[in-house]
Amino acid sequence: MSEIQIKSAEAKRASVSLASVPSSIKDLALETMAKALEDSTDFILEQNHKDVDAAIAGGRPKAFVDRLLLNDKRIADMAEGLRQIKALPDPIGEIISGWTRPNGLEIAQRRVPMGVVSIIYESRPNVTADAIGLCIKTANSVVLKGGSDALHSNQAISDTLSAAAYKAGIPEGAIQLICDTDRNSVIELMNQRGVIDVLIPRGGAGLIKTVVENSKVPVIETGAGNCHVYVDEECDLEMALSIVINSKTHRPGVCNAAEKLLIHRKIAPKLLPIIAEQLQSKSVELRGCPEAFELVDGLTPASEEDWHEEYLDLIMAIKIVDSVDEAISHITKYSTGHSEAIVTNNIFNAQRFTSEVDSAAVYVNASTRFTDGFEFGFGAEIGISTQKLHARGPMGLEALTTLKYVVTGTGQIR
Amino acid sequence: MSEIQIKSAEAKRASVSLASVPSSIKDLALETMAKALEDSTDFILEQNHKDVDAAIAGGRPKAFVDRLLLNDKRIADMAEGLRQIKALPDPIGEIISGWTRPNGLEIAQRRVPMGVVSIIYESRPNVTADAIGLCIKTANSVVLKGGSDALHSNQAISDTLSAAAYKAGIPEGAIQLICDTDRNSVIELMNQRGVIDVLIPRGGAGLIKTVVENSKVPVIETGAGNCHVYVDEECDLEMALSIVINSKTHRPGVCNAAEKLLIHRKIAPKLLPIIAEQLQSKSVELRGCPEAFELVDGLTPASEEDWHEEYLDLIMAIKIVDSVDEAISHITKYSTGHSEAIVTNNIFNAQRFTSEVDSAAVYVNASTRFTDGFEFGFGAEIGISTQKLHARGPMGLEALTTLKYVVTGTGQIR
Repeated sequence: MSEIQIKSAEAKRASVSLASVPSSIKDLALETMAKALEDSTDFILEQNHKDVDAAIAGGRPKAFVDRLLLNDKRIADMAEGLRQIKALPDPIGEIISGWTRPNGLEIAQRRVPMGVVSIIYESRPNVTADAIGLCIKTANSVVLKGGSDALHSNQAISDTLSAAAYKAGIPEGAIQLICDTDRNSVIELMNQRGVIDVLIPRGGAGLIKTVVENSKVPVIETGAGNCHVYVDEECDLEMALSIVINSKTHRPGVCNAAEKLLIHRKIAPKLLPIIAEQLQSKSVELRGCPEAFELVDGLTPASEEDWHEEYLDLIMAIKIVDSVDEAISHITKYSTGHSEAIVTNNIFNAQRFTSEVDSAAVYVNASTRFTDGFEFGFGAEIGISTQKLHARGPMGLEALTTLKYVVTGTGQIR
Repeated sequence: MSEIQIKSAEAKRASVSLASVPSSIKDLALETMAKALEDSTDFILEQNHKDVDAAIAGGRPKAFVDRLLLNDKRIADMAEGLRQIKALPDPIGEIISGWTRPNGLEIAQRRVPMGVVSIIYESRPNVTADAIGLCIKTANSVVLKGGSDALHSNQAISDTLSAAAYKAGIPEGAIQLICDTDRNSVIELMNQRGVIDVLIPRGGAGLIKTVVENSKVPVIETGAGNCHVYVDEECDLEMALSIVINSKTHRPGVCNAAEKLLIHRKIAPKLLPIIAEQLQSKSVELRGCPEAFELVDGLTPASEEDWHEEYLDLIMAIKIVDSVDEAISHITKYSTGHSEAIVTNNIFNAQRFTSEVDSAAVYVNASTRFTDGFEFGFGAEIGISTQKLHARGPMGLEALTTLKYVVTGTGQIR
């Protein structure tokens, strides 16, 4: 048996008794884990240096090395993250609904753990602590597959946390880190149907696409955001300006940043030059349709590719549209279904937009940047789902749970 | 473009306006469709005869021909099914939850259609009407791929229903039947990620396995049931007997029928011979572990394969166990996660069983045969999901919906 088969099977075994571990033990484990991280800071940093040195020697870009690098502050943040997860209400055991049938059968729909959750991620070692914490809180076993560049760091964090968790009463085997750095190991993980219950890829578009298209294990897609802001004919100009600027420039490298601006033809001549100037003053490169080209200096023509692309950068493509209908059609054609906003004074256009735009989050008069587990008030975030099955939009702890029908009778038969 | 690409794209286009069609129009459409089925009975039967004649000429087994055959009663039942769907509450538009953030943003989680639902099914033409009805009620476009043996029947039903639906105000293009009978067309359907939102295979284990393992479109698995009844040491003997007999023999060919009996060692010598005799008197073939072999005449030894198998037939395998723990371990190892029952007087064993057995439905002192959308009171059933993502257990209309966050602000930015 390969490492993945052995560790997945151990995780599955542990998941049976983990499912009924009470909140008090899970919370004790999270506190013990946070303390252990703090106490093991030197060891973790020592291991992290091996990864960082190798990355530098390997000529990895600076941004890559920065994501990999740990320091006292980052380890303290991981510990703090575990304590925040501890403070959240435990979703497991909640009765979602229940009723009694005419024959006296009592049906209760109970929230239970998924079983075994696997997370595939890239170079940030803090995901290791975050993922383990979220899975322990939801009573799931976890099988982690981090980037090979972060292996020493991930092992140090995982070893520290699992020792602490088991000491606190979490069943042994519930936390597994895959050390096999062969690329085929991802394929093997994707084949563990029946052992791993859900697979969550966290990383670049390439990783997510590979997993979504090839996995036999059910996947939660945490996807790309080609987000749109549509500025309607009737709107508050100041509000439109601030929402566009914020959606695009507040943090351009994340999935809820706006990539496209759609603006109504009637208001474009007046408003677009002002918006464009402010965007350009914040170093945003502008591309656009021929009409936008006429109105904005320094704007270059957008290609068909542009309308599809998630730039994750200080670039924005602008299209002038005739109506809310044309805005909705454009979004329907090009959006990745993440977040879209309308800025309008017209309630009917707002209603059309929210009912016909098929995205995880649809905004009226607010920035797309709010699509985020913490901004929504969840206190934790597994990621932002752009699929429609199971979880859609920012995912809190509940995304790591499933439901079970518990049916109690007094001898009923059909 | 292939037929599948064209029809999927048409379904997707129609889904945008279909999403906001009000309940009154959807219900009018369902009534019009029911009436149209009744009015077109002769035409549908005529087309059905072509399929039936071809099946008989092709030497198909009697059971196959029977599933394919329509008559006045079966068409009337389809119409009645549409009227039952009409009578159900409309799940679309329900606000699941909503709250206001400290910054004043109002967040509402609204139930919305999936978009485009595709159903792949085998020879029963009544699934055509059922699937179209469920999708119209939930404002989903539907792309159907029925068995090639039922093509004339399916076309007649689909043409009748779509004409009626469009007349009532459902957007044209919302109902699509794939006529391409090439086996590769299933593969093409599974590749329509981004156009088709969810794919539901309804049919034999082979079809389901192929779809689950190869689809790039998210799948809801409606799966196999290797269901267990565990009879505990302390139990009501009459109740144990009636639950085992009912779970196994009431309708042995369906997925919620019990396939395995686990019985506690302390009670087996007294109870097992009585259960076995009654099962045998109902023509159930018994297989079992060596100890069961000692206690029951006419029982043959069970192989390792037996413990995995879903017989869907009058066969039951019996294992004697030492404890509720051994029963749970056995179920964890061999169950398909559909339905399992414990018969016990002991509340602690009942609690252990319901919390540790990881199946969609877990029963205390009732027959496994109740895992069914109608028995649960849903008024409709899409199928029974054995996966943990999105929907688990009997699926009602809600399984064909997803959620969308509608966020309303007054100019909020981050």
